[in-house]
Amino acid sequence: MSFAPLSNDTFLRACRRQATDYTPLWLMRQAGRYLPEYKATRAKAGSFMGLATNVDYATEVTLQPLARFTLDAAILFSDILTVPDAMGLGLSFAEGEGPRFAKVVRDEAAVDALAVPDMDKLRYVFDAVTSIRKALNGRVPLIGFSGSPWTLACYMVEGKGSDDYRMVKSLMYSRPDLMHRILATNADAVAAYLNAQIDAGAQAVMIFDSWGGVLADGAFQEFSLAYTTRVLAQLKRTGVDGTDVPRLVFTKGGALWLEDMKPLDCEVLGLDWTANLARARALVGGAVGGPGKALQGNIDPNVLFAPPEQIAAQARRVLDSFGTPHTDRSSTGPTHIFNLGHGISQFTPPEHVAALVETVHQYSRSQRAGG
Amino acid sequence: MSFAPLSNDTFLRACRRQATDYTPLWLMRQAGRYLPEYKATRAKAGSFMGLATNVDYATEVTLQPLARFTLDAAILFSDILTVPDAMGLGLSFAEGEGPRFAKVVRDEAAVDALAVPDMDKLRYVFDAVTSIRKALNGRVPLIGFSGSPWTLACYMVEGKGSDDYRMVKSLMYSRPDLMHRILATNADAVAAYLNAQIDAGAQAVMIFDSWGGVLADGAFQEFSLAYTTRVLAQLKRTGVDGTDVPRLVFTKGGALWLEDMKPLDCEVLGLDWTANLARARALVGGAVGGPGKALQGNIDPNVLFAPPEQIAAQARRVLDSFGTPHTDRSSTGPTHIFNLGHGISQFTPPEHVAALVETVHQYSRSQRAGG
Repeated sequence: MSFAPLSNDTFLRACRRQATDYTPLWLMRQAGRYLPEYKATRAKAGSFMGLATNVDYATEVTLQPLARFTLDAAILFSDILTVPDAMGLGLSFAEGEGPRFAKVVRDEAAVDALAVPDMDKLRYVFDAVTSIRKALNGRVPLIGFSGSPWTLACYMVEGKGSDDYRMVKSLMYSRPDLMHRILATNADAVAAYLNAQIDAGAQAVMIFDSWGGVLADGAFQEFSLAYTTRVLAQLKRTGVDGTDVPRLVFTKGGALWLEDMKPLDCEVLGLDWTANLARARALVGGAVGGPGKALQGNIDPNVLFAPPEQIAAQARRVLDSFGTPHTDRSSTGPTHIFNLGHGISQFTPPEHVAALVETVHQYSRSQRAGG
Repeated sequence: MSFAPLSNDTFLRACRRQATDYTPLWLMRQAGRYLPEYKATRAKAGSFMGLATNVDYATEVTLQPLARFTLDAAILFSDILTVPDAMGLGLSFAEGEGPRFAKVVRDEAAVDALAVPDMDKLRYVFDAVTSIRKALNGRVPLIGFSGSPWTLACYMVEGKGSDDYRMVKSLMYSRPDLMHRILATNADAVAAYLNAQIDAGAQAVMIFDSWGGVLADGAFQEFSLAYTTRVLAQLKRTGVDGTDVPRLVFTKGGALWLEDMKPLDCEVLGLDWTANLARARALVGGAVGGPGKALQGNIDPNVLFAPPEQIAAQARRVLDSFGTPHTDRSSTGPTHIFNLGHGISQFTPPEHVAALVETVHQYSRSQRAGG
């Protein structure tokens, strides 16, 4: 496979802790319901899964936000639950509701029946990766992604979203042996899934541990972090272009455990809005010439409901909180990738996103110029 | 007013960082739907507010868990939203749903109309405090409580529970001036409310900042912590018995900000299950003879769905995480009050609570005896 050379490598450079002219940004869930053009494509597709499983539609919606905003990366349009769906649990999205599985995994028999799925069942995802990569034509890099083993397990046990995680935690505290078996299978499935995305053209891969933050201290390390580690250990390091593939890990609500996440074999740690970026940089950002993680985040998506001047002020505050990234082109050092601390809300006015993007690019250039 | 002398002061001693023979415990929402006898009283009362506003019923349900379990404190049965209800917002509880306000506070006119309510409108709460105190007859101390200014504001702006806090954060980021006015009024109302509970017989008071943890770093300090501080500055220090009234502050999801909470003028900090108690103790627990905070928490309420042996193991893990509290009767030092990290689930089997209580009392005695 061969793709067009990359014209904007700012995001990948920041992932590698290389100096950049400005702070790159992209937005979690940037292709989504806040865009009228997304809703139009979704209507044509008939359903969410109709959209996600159709290569042309998935390509179309992935590129939509790039037509409006000067974002520095694209992210595959898909869902975090494609893997358990391929395991045979039967994913569906009822209109106006969240995801739901036809089968749940709550007893030993259901755990016995679990296995790493045949990756051919996820061919539609890998085809979408290749199609998007071609359509991007080198404009910005493409990020592939998966849910974390723990986050997938939450849905597999609960059968849908939850506000108390009662079922999955009941299983975890009652039968930790079964939970470990689910998580081991999930980890190996996620690794195979991300490796296939890399083979299809993904230039970076991100693990979304969306529900790691609901775990107790101790349980997080044992049931989430250990299996993210198991995924990372199996990932390919080189993409189809022969270049390295940065790995990003984002645990929503995980800022408390940043020191535990420091040893992860990944390049970037994502943070939600509860984190203090200055403290996070001091803990894991590293020094110029030394080891460390790039940091990604972390503005509250609700900031985007305020008027543009307030959005700009809050964006500057986040950039100031990280401080000026290192500017030494001969070395690696602390870098920042601007993002939201969680997915963008469907109620966000698109013109407010434009204000955010403009401020981040302009202000981060002025930071590097010494204010 | 004069009440019977206290026969079990373990909780109050631990609040004051005095040595105790064992680690005291009580459970957030210990009077509640997991108890069949609570449901029976609730049915007689007709509605949640019918229960909360009737002094006899409120007394009855407050004492119910003490008849089953050897808990070391009682907590007033009430709701955190009584204060905005007294402000005229019209609180109601639809069957099977959460609280809802008839009026919401989302614009300048609504903020202009807010004021500290006449405490006579909350007389039913203070009467319940006195009635419960009498009924306890010195058995264990009675804790009064209120929602924090920020937590009350969340409900006042949203009108009900929320999963994204879009309305309240939109107002906060768009019109911080209005949000500060709401919070100042709330803080003064909460202080008056807690002082009236103290005058009615409360022996400790707790501020529940249930939604502080949804705020961004920076916003938490400005919009939640600053107003908890404002409440604390106005609280009476001495109860009707002439003894000190310990003050407890619990921010759900606030473990990240423990260092920011260290200067709070209160005796106890509550923690949810994401916190590491050893680290929390090192940060704010203080040394023997030195200043510090008592810590309260922090087992995941979902542990109570596991079988009794697993509950016991997890309870020991929490006690071990804090470590042995100080045992020097001639001095103050680090102490721990065992609790859940959030309210008990309505689905909890009551006999599982018995297993928890027994383990905490027994194991914490053995810790002090050197294991």
